[in-house]
Amino acid sequence: MHGLMMDKQLSIASIAEFAELQFPDTEIVSVTADNPLHRYTYRDCFRRSRQLADVLTKRGYEPATRIATLAWNDYRHMECYYGISGAGFVCHTVNPRLFPEQLTYIINHADDKLMFVDPMFMPLLEKLKPAITKVETFVVFTDEQSMPASDLPGAISYEAFIADGDPSFVWPEFDEHRASALCYTSGTTGNPKGVLYSHRSTLLHALVGNTGAVLALSPRDVVLPVVPMFHVNAWGMPYAAPMVGTKIVYPGPKMGDGEALYNLMESEGVTMSAGVPTVWLALLAYARGADKTFSTLKRTLVGGAAVPAAVIAEFRDRHGIDVQQGWGMTETSPIGSVNKVLPKFDNLTPDEWLELRTKAGRAVFGVEMKIVNDAGETLPWDGESAGALKVRGPWICSDYFGLAGDSEAHAEPGWFDTGDVATIDPDGYMAITDRTKDVIKSGGEWISSIDLENAAVGHPQVAEAAVIGVAHPKWTERPLLIVVAEGDRPSKDELIEFLSDKVAKWWLPDDVVYIEEIPHTATGKILKTALRKQFADYQLPTV
Amino acid sequence: MHGLMMDKQLSIASIAEFAELQFPDTEIVSVTADNPLHRYTYRDCFRRSRQLADVLTKRGYEPATRIATLAWNDYRHMECYYGISGAGFVCHTVNPRLFPEQLTYIINHADDKLMFVDPMFMPLLEKLKPAITKVETFVVFTDEQSMPASDLPGAISYEAFIADGDPSFVWPEFDEHRASALCYTSGTTGNPKGVLYSHRSTLLHALVGNTGAVLALSPRDVVLPVVPMFHVNAWGMPYAAPMVGTKIVYPGPKMGDGEALYNLMESEGVTMSAGVPTVWLALLAYARGADKTFSTLKRTLVGGAAVPAAVIAEFRDRHGIDVQQGWGMTETSPIGSVNKVLPKFDNLTPDEWLELRTKAGRAVFGVEMKIVNDAGETLPWDGESAGALKVRGPWICSDYFGLAGDSEAHAEPGWFDTGDVATIDPDGYMAITDRTKDVIKSGGEWISSIDLENAAVGHPQVAEAAVIGVAHPKWTERPLLIVVAEGDRPSKDELIEFLSDKVAKWWLPDDVVYIEEIPHTATGKILKTALRKQFADYQLPTV
Repeated sequence: MHGLMMDKQLSIASIAEFAELQFPDTEIVSVTADNPLHRYTYRDCFRRSRQLADVLTKRGYEPATRIATLAWNDYRHMECYYGISGAGFVCHTVNPRLFPEQLTYIINHADDKLMFVDPMFMPLLEKLKPAITKVETFVVFTDEQSMPASDLPGAISYEAFIADGDPSFVWPEFDEHRASALCYTSGTTGNPKGVLYSHRSTLLHALVGNTGAVLALSPRDVVLPVVPMFHVNAWGMPYAAPMVGTKIVYPGPKMGDGEALYNLMESEGVTMSAGVPTVWLALLAYARGADKTFSTLKRTLVGGAAVPAAVIAEFRDRHGIDVQQGWGMTETSPIGSVNKVLPKFDNLTPDEWLELRTKAGRAVFGVEMKIVNDAGETLPWDGESAGALKVRGPWICSDYFGLAGDSEAHAEPGWFDTGDVATIDPDGYMAITDRTKDVIKSGGEWISSIDLENAAVGHPQVAEAAVIGVAHPKWTERPLLIVVAEGDRPSKDELIEFLSDKVAKWWLPDDVVYIEEIPHTATGKILKTALRKQFADYQLPTV
Repeated sequence: MHGLMMDKQLSIASIAEFAELQFPDTEIVSVTADNPLHRYTYRDCFRRSRQLADVLTKRGYEPATRIATLAWNDYRHMECYYGISGAGFVCHTVNPRLFPEQLTYIINHADDKLMFVDPMFMPLLEKLKPAITKVETFVVFTDEQSMPASDLPGAISYEAFIADGDPSFVWPEFDEHRASALCYTSGTTGNPKGVLYSHRSTLLHALVGNTGAVLALSPRDVVLPVVPMFHVNAWGMPYAAPMVGTKIVYPGPKMGDGEALYNLMESEGVTMSAGVPTVWLALLAYARGADKTFSTLKRTLVGGAAVPAAVIAEFRDRHGIDVQQGWGMTETSPIGSVNKVLPKFDNLTPDEWLELRTKAGRAVFGVEMKIVNDAGETLPWDGESAGALKVRGPWICSDYFGLAGDSEAHAEPGWFDTGDVATIDPDGYMAITDRTKDVIKSGGEWISSIDLENAAVGHPQVAEAAVIGVAHPKWTERPLLIVVAEGDRPSKDELIEFLSDKVAKWWLPDDVVYIEEIPHTATGKILKTALRKQFADYQLPTV
């Protein structure tokens, strides 16, 4: 027997409708290619989103047709989030930082029919043009006056494109499971894989994001998403903020510019921001150099990579800002865990506190986590046992777009294998210790390559370090430490001695080799697949 | 095309699973019949909920079988919320304050098979016993030692009932639309009507409840729900609090006892509370009389009836506590609107602020509101136009249990007619001005009976006042003021003169009559149906 409650489908357009009605005067401030400080309101944003939706609808696309964006964070990109998804199409956010061959693959694999693009990415697209012939129209995020000359098919300025859109367009209703957005992940191996979000998953994720356990936004907040809108929907902030009337500041192409970000935060009264650790390094460096502090910023959500303790400490000690680490992936929408301090930890020493805050945090409501060993057995939450991190929940991907079940990550029914190795402590704080592919499996136990690398780079003559597992007849694998030296190369014994009080004895590398350069991915991560290939036949002295 | 996200069904049990894992040490403190201050943790609560679910499951009931509770707020009642609904049955909370014939009607109409009952309500049930023969078993909220003698069928203590339940019971998964709970409304006319909640509606309601727009609970809060658990699920707090690890204090039968509530709040560090206005009157009176103030209480949510400005002002001025008015009904789960101050109103004068805070507040995300006139036309949000308030959303009822569409409230497809008359101002603040049935329809315009009554009781010789519409050939209806005097009866002219600067001229009553006593409902509201019957043939002097 069903309950007798209205069968209202969850939809992204419902956020637009609510915010347009309830928070019409809330501001959205953007840095764009054609305006250093564009300013308008939710009223304008969602009226223009409806105009865009009307234009797209009149083009007669099939439901869930993929429509791409290749752009920085600004108001027009936000209009696309609502206009494309709200009209029933899929907003496919493309990451301009990918290699050209990856971009070509993604745009063709998604079968994008139309593409919104920042003017600065037009030269990139013009190069790709012969390979992405299925895109019929390119809409450039600018107005008629600033429209650059282009021979991209159907090239038109965004303002001209939406000009005839009917601002009285009414959002259509449809099944909440309809696909709403698409974002590809780029691993270190194989082709990028597309994660296909739904209206339901997006709305539930945004609702949980607005609880005190996550973003805790309100009409008194001003949020600046430094995480790109092409990167997992800017962690859901463009959906969460309008639900609660939070002012949004979009930095456009000024993402990595510490001074520009600082000035935006001060002039617009930003209270909350979110992004990857490198952003905060740039921001801290600017504030330190210019001897400035933050007058309105109160908290930041940091994710995408482990946050160095020094960053957390400097924000706390110098600026009084709470850095909340989070964990998530494209496949998890992305919010999986957030590091908030439980009241029981209010009296930790500063060092204990810092150790707690460098963990990835506790699972948010809606996300279930478990860690398992090689045999698939669930490991205890003791803060020691490290296992493959698996998650499930209504905003966790069940498959990849166009892969039809052919994914190792979904080998265990109902669970997504994150590819991360993690520990979870008795209070539920999860800490990522490695990637499953990088962990060294020694005698049935796991050795974290990341922990060894972090320890090694503490040596003054080690510029960069990578640790990989090398075949060993007795232990299956043993760690090999690969080093790029700074100045004189320390001896193997000296390095092992240096590590010996930093990791467990049985973790110590069986050998050390020096190389001139460690290979990296497009996003700056160590390319371990290349190292493993290079050292595939390496003979450890312990064999 | 559907998104590729896990098809995890929303469920009440998922709250229990999350809280048991993530907040096992969070406390639940209860006043019960057999313990003045029972204290345990979420770990205990949800283990026992699973034991209860196991016992109920083994009894072999059909899915969605109705299982009733007749009890105050305490931990065993909370275990029923989770144990009954989580096992797939319907938790039917019965209001012990209803008239015996209403109780009989409700229990039979719901077809309750089993009933959980506080010891203090056993005498009441023993009287009803001959009329409620379909209830097979009565489980008494106490332990073996304190179990009273009873000849209710199958009478057993709660502790004995769950003793053999398997604490390793695993919550079953099922369709999120499954009915989860049932609560009857008692109007002033006709039989009570049952509102049937679903797992989906309950979970979405609790999620929105946990955003900053509503309860904004966190692990640093301690919540005391004074609103009964038999009254619209204690406004969702037993579901919302465990999602975010908030400690709960249940006052048991001490609901209306200002001193007991005050002492509980102080000793348990309560930061947030919620209930109807009469509760706060009792609490304020106690604090005033004992010359005490609150050391931890920061905010209260008040609903169920209009909150007098004096209550809001006294909480603010004397105690520094923010009284947030809300609006909702059994049919709306109940949260429809909450009165939070938008930042633009931070600089209001104290009087302007108080005027704002006496409104019912702004619609929360998920609830759409409109006001319509007699012709069904939508009225503007101008703060002046009063119309019938209609709402829709995923936690608004679509029909009544067993009524199969035969409800005037759902005459307009997709909308629920609340029966309230309201204005909505340009900022979205809604204010209830009357009940649709009580408003006086004069010349196509509506006159608020409540506004006239409130104005009339301001006269020192008016003890109580009621205003009803009486037939008028020209205006359709005109207001008749019915007064119970305190001391000498003021003349009609004197009363009209008294009202003339308080309401619009065309609102002034056409006549005044005195009676000895105004009839009331069981819950203390003026019984206007009786007055309308009594004055059905009244001849106004203006006719």
